[in-house]
Amino acid sequence: MRTMQWRMKRRTPFLKPDDYELRELTLDDPPPGHVLVAVRFLPLDPYLATAMQTWSSAGHEWEDGVIRGRLVAQVEKSNSERFSQGDHVLGYGRWQSHEVLDASRLEHAPTGPGVAPRLGVGILGSSGMTAWIGIHLTDPQPGQTVFVSAATGAVGSVAGQLAKRRGCRVVGLAGGREKCDQAVRVLGFDACVDYREPDLDKQVADAAPSGIDVLFENVGAPSMGACMPSMVWHGRILLCGLTAHYNSPEPVAMANFRDLLYRQVTVTPIALPEHQELFAPAREELHRLVAEGSLRYSETVIPGFENAPAAFLDMLSGKGIGKRLVQINSS
Amino acid sequence: MRTMQWRMKRRTPFLKPDDYELRELTLDDPPPGHVLVAVRFLPLDPYLATAMQTWSSAGHEWEDGVIRGRLVAQVEKSNSERFSQGDHVLGYGRWQSHEVLDASRLEHAPTGPGVAPRLGVGILGSSGMTAWIGIHLTDPQPGQTVFVSAATGAVGSVAGQLAKRRGCRVVGLAGGREKCDQAVRVLGFDACVDYREPDLDKQVADAAPSGIDVLFENVGAPSMGACMPSMVWHGRILLCGLTAHYNSPEPVAMANFRDLLYRQVTVTPIALPEHQELFAPAREELHRLVAEGSLRYSETVIPGFENAPAAFLDMLSGKGIGKRLVQINSS
Repeated sequence: MRTMQWRMKRRTPFLKPDDYELRELTLDDPPPGHVLVAVRFLPLDPYLATAMQTWSSAGHEWEDGVIRGRLVAQVEKSNSERFSQGDHVLGYGRWQSHEVLDASRLEHAPTGPGVAPRLGVGILGSSGMTAWIGIHLTDPQPGQTVFVSAATGAVGSVAGQLAKRRGCRVVGLAGGREKCDQAVRVLGFDACVDYREPDLDKQVADAAPSGIDVLFENVGAPSMGACMPSMVWHGRILLCGLTAHYNSPEPVAMANFRDLLYRQVTVTPIALPEHQELFAPAREELHRLVAEGSLRYSETVIPGFENAPAAFLDMLSGKGIGKRLVQINSS
Repeated sequence: MRTMQWRMKRRTPFLKPDDYELRELTLDDPPPGHVLVAVRFLPLDPYLATAMQTWSSAGHEWEDGVIRGRLVAQVEKSNSERFSQGDHVLGYGRWQSHEVLDASRLEHAPTGPGVAPRLGVGILGSSGMTAWIGIHLTDPQPGQTVFVSAATGAVGSVAGQLAKRRGCRVVGLAGGREKCDQAVRVLGFDACVDYREPDLDKQVADAAPSGIDVLFENVGAPSMGACMPSMVWHGRILLCGLTAHYNSPEPVAMANFRDLLYRQVTVTPIALPEHQELFAPAREELHRLVAEGSLRYSETVIPGFENAPAAFLDMLSGKGIGKRLVQINSS
């Protein structure tokens, strides 16, 4: 079986299109306990930027420079009792059009009415669960103001809706009129600030007149700096993502930094693997809300394996909305 | 009674010597319940920088621009049963050589063997108590590494010694060989990194080979940025002071910002007034340790009321060691 594969040509602090290399190789038949899959979707997760830069992800080195990430796939040939041909699975593997995977490390993709397999790497996977767990841990109260940056992103869009369901005032931050409209009209945010418009601090202050109790931060310094003067005393920042910084030079320019002290603001990071005990309740509620249609989600699907690196860099620069996925082997 | 007084000529984001104005005025005799005091010491507390810039401190506006702060004073004329002539008192008032103060808001300065009244605004006052409460709340364990920036400052010097008493490895950060020697030889730190020497990140990494468990931060971004790559997973930053930023332009350049997320570092600010319930045990232990000679402290005493603003700006720029105090009316 021939497969295409994306690898990094070099380690680099700033990813450019030329850093990626497309190769073709042959896969052996799956040994016992393994399956051969056709990959259907590659989720474009921001955390992959650092892995691509450093050839290291979650403590594992990429010795060959081949990109690894979450995969949504369909079994073509099974050498395992757990999976049959045609099964939709979620796994972790190389960025390839086809892959041989250890069946013991695969899970069945979610199914059911209104639930597509690919949601298992989106709203029913790491994106949705990160949002659910972040809101669960910060526990915003009815009437409090929750500010969500990257409001229409895969995590932010879910976090905002979950905060709204708790009776919070929810204010988003997004780039451009289209995304801000989406946040308010489709996702139900109370307001959304456009970071491409001037006077960002004032826009934030106007949209959060009672101050920000919880900042659900997916972007980094530009958002934190603009929100800081609006944080309430003892305000809380949940540091969930740093999309502004994954592919940008250090050091970071941080405005209103002193407000951390002057407003007694706490910064707490969140990393999904730390909260395994919450995966089951998170999945259960997200699945129910999605199936009953009370949680909206957006996706941007980019077709074509050959477009994966460009689509990834587009996602990092803010193009697209919701969960970004590369679709391949679609027949 | 004639008195000298320092006031701000203007609100300003950056304090310069010309922003201060010396005036002379007449004080009335103390009304009932008040005392007339001769000020002995003006503590040069870094937080005053913001107050001087904005004419606002702890929610109180300085409508006349006259500087207010903690005072160590001696009663010259009492119209209160609580205090007699000659008593040493601690209070809060205008930066003047003499002041009339409400006796109900004064306290007796600490006394006893080895304890001078001025320690009530230093190691036995807000500086020492901030250090004690910060170490109490972060609760570093024996064998853990505690990094203390502004290691020879009024707060850092005490924080480091208290961490050392708990069996921690204590690493300091200070400017220049003299201060680093003081931290190691006098205060008992295990090591002290000189931020005037190159390769700060590497110096920190070498001095904290097991990583930094707790960063007791008194300086701000330059120190945080250098420590960030050495923070352990789930490391903790106690944000206590921002001496690098009180009188510097925003925005702040922050290196290694992404490590907040990558190393899951929590940032928790501390403000002394939030922890009233800990004042009594803090005072009690500090008083005991100072009286028995097991806690060292340094002071830089600058004589002359007329030198107060210059001494304050010198303190902000890092000159001097330990608690900085202006001594006046010394006979």
